[in-house]
Amino acid sequence: MNDWLESVYSDGTALFVSKPSPDIGDRVKIRLRMYEGAPVRHVLLRYWRNGLEQTDRARVVRHERGLCWYEAVLPVTERRMRYRFELVCDDGLWFYTQRGLTSCMPDHTYEFSLLADYVQPAWVKDAVFYQIFPERFCNGDPANDVQPGEYSQEGHPTLRMRWTDTPLNYEKGRCLDFYGGDLEGIRQKIPYLKDLGVTALYLNPIFRAPSVHKYDCVDYFHVDPHFGGDEALAALSRDLHENGMRLILDISINHTGANHRWFNRDGMFFPTTEGAYHNPDAPERGYYFFGEGNSYHGWFANANLPTLNYTSQALRDAIYRAEDSVLKKWLKPPYSIDGWRFDVADTFARNDDVQLADQLWPEIRRSIRAENGQAYILAEDWGDCADRLQGDAWDSPMNYYGCGRPIRQFFGQPDMLLGRDPRIRRVRYTMTAGDLENRVMQHLAKLPWAFWENQFNLFDSHDASRLHNDPAISPMAYRGAVYFQFILPGAASIYYGDEAAIGGRLGTNEGCRYPMPWQRDFQKGWMFRLYRTMAHLKADHPCLARGGMKFLYAQGQTAAIARFDRTEAFLAVLSAGGQDERIRLPLGAIGACGLADTDVMGEALSWRPLDENSVELTVPAGTCYFVQCKMKKK
Amino acid sequence: MNDWLESVYSDGTALFVSKPSPDIGDRVKIRLRMYEGAPVRHVLLRYWRNGLEQTDRARVVRHERGLCWYEAVLPVTERRMRYRFELVCDDGLWFYTQRGLTSCMPDHTYEFSLLADYVQPAWVKDAVFYQIFPERFCNGDPANDVQPGEYSQEGHPTLRMRWTDTPLNYEKGRCLDFYGGDLEGIRQKIPYLKDLGVTALYLNPIFRAPSVHKYDCVDYFHVDPHFGGDEALAALSRDLHENGMRLILDISINHTGANHRWFNRDGMFFPTTEGAYHNPDAPERGYYFFGEGNSYHGWFANANLPTLNYTSQALRDAIYRAEDSVLKKWLKPPYSIDGWRFDVADTFARNDDVQLADQLWPEIRRSIRAENGQAYILAEDWGDCADRLQGDAWDSPMNYYGCGRPIRQFFGQPDMLLGRDPRIRRVRYTMTAGDLENRVMQHLAKLPWAFWENQFNLFDSHDASRLHNDPAISPMAYRGAVYFQFILPGAASIYYGDEAAIGGRLGTNEGCRYPMPWQRDFQKGWMFRLYRTMAHLKADHPCLARGGMKFLYAQGQTAAIARFDRTEAFLAVLSAGGQDERIRLPLGAIGACGLADTDVMGEALSWRPLDENSVELTVPAGTCYFVQCKMKKK
Repeated sequence: MNDWLESVYSDGTALFVSKPSPDIGDRVKIRLRMYEGAPVRHVLLRYWRNGLEQTDRARVVRHERGLCWYEAVLPVTERRMRYRFELVCDDGLWFYTQRGLTSCMPDHTYEFSLLADYVQPAWVKDAVFYQIFPERFCNGDPANDVQPGEYSQEGHPTLRMRWTDTPLNYEKGRCLDFYGGDLEGIRQKIPYLKDLGVTALYLNPIFRAPSVHKYDCVDYFHVDPHFGGDEALAALSRDLHENGMRLILDISINHTGANHRWFNRDGMFFPTTEGAYHNPDAPERGYYFFGEGNSYHGWFANANLPTLNYTSQALRDAIYRAEDSVLKKWLKPPYSIDGWRFDVADTFARNDDVQLADQLWPEIRRSIRAENGQAYILAEDWGDCADRLQGDAWDSPMNYYGCGRPIRQFFGQPDMLLGRDPRIRRVRYTMTAGDLENRVMQHLAKLPWAFWENQFNLFDSHDASRLHNDPAISPMAYRGAVYFQFILPGAASIYYGDEAAIGGRLGTNEGCRYPMPWQRDFQKGWMFRLYRTMAHLKADHPCLARGGMKFLYAQGQTAAIARFDRTEAFLAVLSAGGQDERIRLPLGAIGACGLADTDVMGEALSWRPLDENSVELTVPAGTCYFVQCKMKKK
Repeated sequence: MNDWLESVYSDGTALFVSKPSPDIGDRVKIRLRMYEGAPVRHVLLRYWRNGLEQTDRARVVRHERGLCWYEAVLPVTERRMRYRFELVCDDGLWFYTQRGLTSCMPDHTYEFSLLADYVQPAWVKDAVFYQIFPERFCNGDPANDVQPGEYSQEGHPTLRMRWTDTPLNYEKGRCLDFYGGDLEGIRQKIPYLKDLGVTALYLNPIFRAPSVHKYDCVDYFHVDPHFGGDEALAALSRDLHENGMRLILDISINHTGANHRWFNRDGMFFPTTEGAYHNPDAPERGYYFFGEGNSYHGWFANANLPTLNYTSQALRDAIYRAEDSVLKKWLKPPYSIDGWRFDVADTFARNDDVQLADQLWPEIRRSIRAENGQAYILAEDWGDCADRLQGDAWDSPMNYYGCGRPIRQFFGQPDMLLGRDPRIRRVRYTMTAGDLENRVMQHLAKLPWAFWENQFNLFDSHDASRLHNDPAISPMAYRGAVYFQFILPGAASIYYGDEAAIGGRLGTNEGCRYPMPWQRDFQKGWMFRLYRTMAHLKADHPCLARGGMKFLYAQGQTAAIARFDRTEAFLAVLSAGGQDERIRLPLGAIGACGLADTDVMGEALSWRPLDENSVELTVPAGTCYFVQCKMKKK
């Protein structure tokens, strides 16, 4: 009878760590809990001090809701303290790390760790983000629209994108057309966003650039005039903050556009022959990688996106080091942004023999944080980037790796990244719930807890076909994906228009950048209600922002994931089809004894108690629930 | 029928990597093999370049001994290239990393990696080490023995160790007595060591110090006169090298003795009041951590072993940076040692708020390698130290973690490290063969292949009770431990006297430092024959030095591990008891089709073919074999 193993739990929240952001010199209390009466003789906390193993025996400090709490002391002597638990039983020794229990002694990979010198952007864990592709959200000021003929291609033969003066017709997939979205439009929609439950905005690039997406920046120091210029950003930021909302901006500091003032290949915006391309003596020549015959290195060999060369100290000053640098300018008033999202951060400052990323990210972090100690540093990386999530570089990746990629696969899509290869896309593969758990945990369990709470959880973005437009995704599966996004620690990010069931062709970038259908009455639809429900639920229930997380079930194609604190708990139940299941949920492990009769979207649940610590829930094939648990009496 | 999965294999040897020590700019061929006819549609090599995923499709390049070889190209663009394989089948995708095959997409932890700027100490993989505790090996020059009364304790009340003038009587466990061992004694035994098959010596500390173990050094710059002084080392080194043998020395640069010339607390060796302890203005004052009232920091709070303080630049110069530094002196002629073993390397330069290890190890490495490009950097660390085994710090730990600890547990002992805690030692625990494999692989699979070959594999040392003196260890289990040590990639280390079935009390340091029983005719014993057989086998069969390694079986308490190249293969079969087993060995996976009729120690084997790719071997409970395989025809 090893049921007690299912109840063993600890995490990095304030429930289990007396001081989650300790100082060196602190003696932090570390707790672990399990069912009352578990046959454990000793609970040891093992930690590493100066590279040497130390242990402290935990003592029982609390009995509550059927759970017995143990506590030991971790002296914080270094900036990073690793620890794990060891449960000494008569007939075996169990090791408990962030990855769970094992009887085989684990390596360091998934140990708990506590950082003494890391400042968490504390607001992120409570946030519901909303990502906006500004050109396509709302045209608040038609006076600043792109004018017919403004971006004629004449004289710029290498500019690949198509520009038209005709209104966008996204039914034909012509989504490189200008639509007129601007910052004033976003500002006007603040009441809408507040009603939806959004607390933070992430805007795709807004600095001056010819394209609609503006990753081909021509001037990092000014907001595009068609988005309303710098003043519009100041006004938006002011109004957002007055409404208790946060704002982060997107930037590629990996490359500029070929028409950036510094490079100025075509004289498109700056009609001179100054700039790195035409003038080998230009001060900015060293900002780029020039080779034979004025050739230069472009991102993914794209000549429109020349790569920046960070061996240049002057470039580092210009981008992040100087007081008037790009990154600092926008963190300062009156713009006062709350963080940066870094485009292609995975490859930033990495150019074969020039590998500067390990050195630059900590410098960039210090520079940002010197300006705003709570600024969020969000980085585009689609894979395992645990090395950059240890306190000295990023606060979070765009969490495709531990959220969007696995949940889309769980509901039947090919992997977002590997599936770009047609040979892999064709493989018949059914992801199990066990693999879903593996994929989530192999990401999170390598990170200090603060980084669990920092995660930017998403499955849709400007780089991914919208999930709901895939005919193979049922409305219930879509719900499941959103439940998953909201049950995970961190901030969920709603991609603009998902709440409006916005259209969009699959498999193209344009297809996920269709304009917001304000003309439709989407606020009565189930998707709006789904997002609004989830966003407000998070605001109303602290356990969904600051609680622990545990997989309570993962078999076949059915998973159940709990978020909980000492007084409340929620459960996301995800079935990806397969067959109807009756699953045993060990609710006792989170101090609960039952479920609400209906879930947050009004679905009726069928469940019955099995014993003191578990219930049986009927999960029809393909059904997903998000349900509040009934807690045991104290 | 997924049997083909058992055959999928690649590693970092020259069989599978066309240039195991590549230069940046090389295009290295990477190979993988599996059974002919495996239902694989595509084999992809996935690698990361500048942080971005790339793939190359492997093509079939060879059919040999029932195995089909695939090959893809890895362009080496950075100093560390990560890669894995993906096997695309109609009904699934398999990921192959150094940890093996998974259907769930793995994280970066166990990926293959190739280092472009790492110089492997190439001799280590071929070596059979012999560790000598010099005071206890052989008294070659009685004229240099410690004299009665020489180390009187009078005036040195804090010196904890007991000194006597009587001859050692190890039956009573009085092993802190001087026995007279010296370097001349070792030199005289070179023919003995050559006959045994030893190719490299690791000597415990030999620099001047009062204790027998000499970790309480008083002068890093001179060999202890009782060991014969500097000249004796020069002579030993010369003769070893003339005999094609290597020599590495042990040193603690973490702390000195309290009577080191620099510290000179008691005036024991240097009768002045100079030195850091008595003279606050001494140049060496900054080498140590002094506090209030002339207190100082000692290793593990031991006042006899004051900790060195590497915030001192002068200390760094003295220890490793200057041309006449400690580490460089002994690498230079006439001493010309082949490497350093660093005592307590796990905690070196780590003192709570002073954490310098990450910075210092690369500096130390560069300094050593500037003197001897093939010097072996061996570090004492008993745990997971993969972070220091990535090319910029150590070449190997004392491999307790992936060798001595698991193999002792597999044969029934408590864990060498965790078992020091009596609460854990008392746990009833039977390690499975699966856990043995886990423990080995979670160590090795995080390392570039060169580091697999660098491993210093041991289970006995001056810090561990000798395995054969444990009455619970059968002679057959002992064989198994030695087989394990020799089948693993890397160098096996024989601890002096193990081949002589030397005595020794369990559970004390003295008990593993008994003097070599030259008076006994141990060369006729089975332990001598065991070691001699294994050492010569390694010299005679390249696959045991440079081949690949694969667990072919790990169930219950029976494991079978293969070493192999394209033309030969050996198998270590280890049974830790339990019950008689008939195990299926997929020999086809290593290109083999059968086993020799007797193993290398003359045990008869009972086996029969099962099918084209496997045989059934009968393994009586508790029996271990080391056996050569019969290869399939080309």
